[in-house]
Amino acid sequence: MQQTRTSQAPLYPAERLLLGPGPSPVPLRVLRALGAPTLGHLDPQYIAIMDETCELLRQVFRTQNQLTFPVTGTGMAGMECLAVNLIEPGDEVIVGVNGVFGTRMKEIMEGCGATVHALEAGWGDVFTLEQIGAAFERHPRARLLGLVHAETSTGAHQPLDGIADLVHARGALLAVDAVTSLGGHDLRVDEWGIDACYSGSQKCLNCPPGLAPVTFGERALARMDARKTRVQSWYLDVSQLRKYYVGGGPSRFYHHTAPINMTYALREALLIVMEEGLESRYARHQQMHQRLRRGLEALGLSYVPKHSLYTLNCIHIPAGADDAAVRRRLLEEYNIEIGAGLGPMAGRAWRIGLMGHGATVRNVDLILAALRQVLGRG
Amino acid sequence: MQQTRTSQAPLYPAERLLLGPGPSPVPLRVLRALGAPTLGHLDPQYIAIMDETCELLRQVFRTQNQLTFPVTGTGMAGMECLAVNLIEPGDEVIVGVNGVFGTRMKEIMEGCGATVHALEAGWGDVFTLEQIGAAFERHPRARLLGLVHAETSTGAHQPLDGIADLVHARGALLAVDAVTSLGGHDLRVDEWGIDACYSGSQKCLNCPPGLAPVTFGERALARMDARKTRVQSWYLDVSQLRKYYVGGGPSRFYHHTAPINMTYALREALLIVMEEGLESRYARHQQMHQRLRRGLEALGLSYVPKHSLYTLNCIHIPAGADDAAVRRRLLEEYNIEIGAGLGPMAGRAWRIGLMGHGATVRNVDLILAALRQVLGRG
Repeated sequence: MQQTRTSQAPLYPAERLLLGPGPSPVPLRVLRALGAPTLGHLDPQYIAIMDETCELLRQVFRTQNQLTFPVTGTGMAGMECLAVNLIEPGDEVIVGVNGVFGTRMKEIMEGCGATVHALEAGWGDVFTLEQIGAAFERHPRARLLGLVHAETSTGAHQPLDGIADLVHARGALLAVDAVTSLGGHDLRVDEWGIDACYSGSQKCLNCPPGLAPVTFGERALARMDARKTRVQSWYLDVSQLRKYYVGGGPSRFYHHTAPINMTYALREALLIVMEEGLESRYARHQQMHQRLRRGLEALGLSYVPKHSLYTLNCIHIPAGADDAAVRRRLLEEYNIEIGAGLGPMAGRAWRIGLMGHGATVRNVDLILAALRQVLGRG
Repeated sequence: MQQTRTSQAPLYPAERLLLGPGPSPVPLRVLRALGAPTLGHLDPQYIAIMDETCELLRQVFRTQNQLTFPVTGTGMAGMECLAVNLIEPGDEVIVGVNGVFGTRMKEIMEGCGATVHALEAGWGDVFTLEQIGAAFERHPRARLLGLVHAETSTGAHQPLDGIADLVHARGALLAVDAVTSLGGHDLRVDEWGIDACYSGSQKCLNCPPGLAPVTFGERALARMDARKTRVQSWYLDVSQLRKYYVGGGPSRFYHHTAPINMTYALREALLIVMEEGLESRYARHQQMHQRLRRGLEALGLSYVPKHSLYTLNCIHIPAGADDAAVRRRLLEEYNIEIGAGLGPMAGRAWRIGLMGHGATVRNVDLILAALRQVLGRG
C-alpha cells in the first residue's frame, strides 16, 4: 500500500534571501517546527500549543485582550475578519486612505454595507491628529476609524499614539492594520487604546504566510455583542470562533479544523520574538533601517514616504534604471528578492523589507553591495 | 543579532495515529516538503509550483476546469467561497440537509441572502434522485442544488451520478461538498456534471489542514459573470482570485499573499495520490473499509449510515461503553485518535477515519485490536 515510485523530482525551492514586502526570511527553527507531526485539532496537546500561541500573541500585541488568536487565512482575511464583525449595514465609518491597503480597507468595509468616508492623503503621507479630528467633525456619526499603521504599498509609518482618545470621545472604535509592523515596530494595543488590530504571519514575525493574528478589546466585544444583524461571513464570525479559541479548558467547540502545522510555526516564530525582547527588536529594526537608509542615499536613491517604516523601505526607482531588469538580476545573480511597486507605484518604486530575522547587518550590507553593482554605481 | 537563548523546550508533538474525521496522517514526505525554504509568492519558481499544484488538483478532481485552485483557508472557507460567489441575494436554492455539513451549507447560503429550501433526510440517510426531482417540482425557481458527497458527521455516502442531468434541466447548478471524499472516493467532476466542488487538504489528501481545493466549471463561471451584485467576501471573491491563480504566464495579479509552504505540502500530497493512481486508491479505500467493517461487526458494533463512506466509519457507541473514557484510553495507551460524535451525534457515535495514507491493513488491524482491548471484548 505504500508508494514507492516517484514521478517527479523532490521540491528544492531556491534559498532566496527575502528582502521584499513579505514573505520575510523564515528561520530554520520555524521551518522545523512547521514540519513537526500533525496532531488533531481537538487533541489536548494541540489545544495547549494553541493556548500558548495566543498568549504569545498577546505579549507581542502588548495586550491583555482575551480574544487574541490567529485567523486561519492571510493578513487580508484578518482585515476582512475585523470588518465583518465590527460593521453593520448602514454604519458610517472613516478610513484613512493613503495607499493600497487603506484603499482595500475602504472597499471591504463598503462590502459590509458601511458608508465609508475616505480620509485621503497623498501616497507616502500619513495623517495628523488634526486631520483625524476634522474628519470626525465632518462625520460625527462615524462609528469606527480604520487606519493602516504600516502602509506596505508606500512604506509610510502612521503614528498612532493619542488617536484613540479622540476616537473614543466620539464613541467610535479604533481599528488598525498592523500587518507590516507587528513584531518590528513599536505597537502597543492596550496603551494606545486600539480596539481591534490585525496582522500577518509572514512579515516581522518571520513565519510562512497563511495566518492572520487578530486581537479585539472590550469596546470591540461590546460592539459585536450589540449587533442587530448577523455577521455576513460564517468562516470569519468571531461569535463562533471565540468558542474555540477562548473556550476555556481543554474541551472546545468545533468551528473549523485549525491549521495545526502553521500554528506550530507561528508559536515558534513568536517564541523567537519574545526571546529577543520587544524593545531590543524595535531598536534593531530602527538601526538596520538607518544603516540601509544611509547606504541607499549614498547611492543617490531617495525614499517615497516622509515618515518611513523601519521594516519596509520604499524608494523611487532612479532615472535610467530598468525596473524589471534590476529585480531580475538581483534574483538571478544574488538570489535576493526585493519588491516591485504596488498599484499606482508599479514601475515607480522598489520596496526593500528588513523584517525580523531579515533585519541584519549582513543583509543590509549585502543588498547595498548588490544594488551598487546592478545599478552600475560602484 | 541572532537569538541564542531558548526560553522553552522545542516542540515535540506526540506522533499520533490520526484515525479520526481529519486531520489524517501526514506522510513524512509531505512534512518535509512543508518545511522547504519559503519563496516569495510572485517568484517565478513559486508560480510554477502553484501551477503544478492546480494541474494536480484538476487530475484529482477529474476535471478540465481551468478555474481549479486551493483557497487559502480550511474546507469551511471552501464552502463559503462557493456560496458567496454563486449566490446572490434573493436566489432560491435547495440544500440537502442530513448532517452537520448540510446544515452549515444551508446557514452559509442563507447568510448570502438566499432563500434556502432544505431537503431533509434522517442523519445517516442520503437522498434519492426521486426526492431531488420532487424538490425541484416544489421549488421550480431554485437556481442551485447543494449536496454533501461525504457527510463527515454521519459517515453517509451520497451517490452523485445522474443528479446533474436533473439539475441542469432546471437551469440550476450542482454544488458539491467533497471534503471527506476527494482522493479517497470515486469523484468525477466533469463526467458527473458537477458545476462547483470544494474539499479540504487534511482528509484523503493527507496534507495538514489549511487549504481548501475548489473547482468551478463553465456554468458556474457564467453564473458568476452574470452577477448583478458584488460578492460579499473580498477575501473569497473568485473574480479577483482567478487573476492570480489562472492569470496565465509568470506575471500575476496580487490579491493576497499565497500560503507558500502549505502549497509545497499540498503539491507533494497530490503527487503521492497520482503516483498511486486514482482507481487503485479508491479500491484500496474500499478494501480497507470492508476489512474494518467486518472487524467492527465481529465486535458487535454497528454502523450509523445505511450507505457508509469508505473513508469515514461512523458507528454507534455500544451500550455500557464510556465515550470519553474509551477515546482517552485509545489516545493515551495507543496514541491513536478517533473522532467523537458531532452535533446531535455527540455521545452517541464514534467516527473512525481511514483516509489516504491512513487506510492500511496495519492501521485497520491495530484499531480493531485496540478497540477489542479497550471495550473489554477480547
